Amino acid sequence: MPDETVLRTMLFDFYGELLTEKQREYFDLHYNADLSLAEIAESSGISRQGVWDIIRRAEATLRETERKTGLVRRYGAQRQTLREIEDKLQALQSMTDGEAQRLVREIAGQVAELKG
Amino acid sequence: MPDETVLRTMLFDFYGELLTEKQREYFDLHYNADLSLAEIAESSGISRQGVWDIIRRAEATLRETERKTGLVRRYGAQRQTLREIEDKLQALQSMTDGEAQRLVREIAGQVAELKG
Repeated sequence: MPDETVLRTMLFDFYGELLTEKQREYFDLHYNADLSLAEIAESSGISRQGVWDIIRRAEATLRETERKTGLVRRYGAQRQTLREIEDKLQALQSMTDGEAQRLVREIAGQVAELKG
Repeated sequence: MPDETVLRTMLFDFYGELLTEKQREYFDLHYNADLSLAEIAESSGISRQGVWDIIRRAEATLRETERKTGLVRRYGAQRQTLREIEDKLQALQSMTDGEAQRLVREIAGQVAELKG
């Protein structure tokens, strides 16, 4: 399992558009742009507690969506497999030459692209 | 873009758990188990129109979720890349032998797994 910060970023990347505009905005400012609750409260004109409630609800929605669909987990497992494939391609590269090595390089490029 | 039937199956696979239990049940009976609206209506004791309304709302939710997140589209693009990688691995297999060929086979197995 990725650590909490990475997981939160992935949940937001996958499901952020399912949040309300305000939830998305405050979540993004707090967790991605690293603004404090006090800073967001000041610039938005609502209380610190109000900001925190919105961010907490946003996070609950993201986690509930993941609990139901498991798409981030599925994606994490795919990335692990892609990393294993990359290791094998690296080994293959030193075992091949000419046209075969060119193909191995092309595949490695596409695997890197899939890993995103 | 996949055809409508394939797309509907993928939307249900990805986001089905976000539907209500009734929406999921009727959508599944109609589109996956191929039951008619009349058959579902009869077994559930609600009107044919009622069944259709529920299925329509389910489909609207699935499509709206995809419109917002684009995860099925992303997945479709990944599958296309994996198919291209498979073709290259097949060519590589005939260009290699011994340990290199064994590695190519292992990678092909993992790529097939990723394609699901």
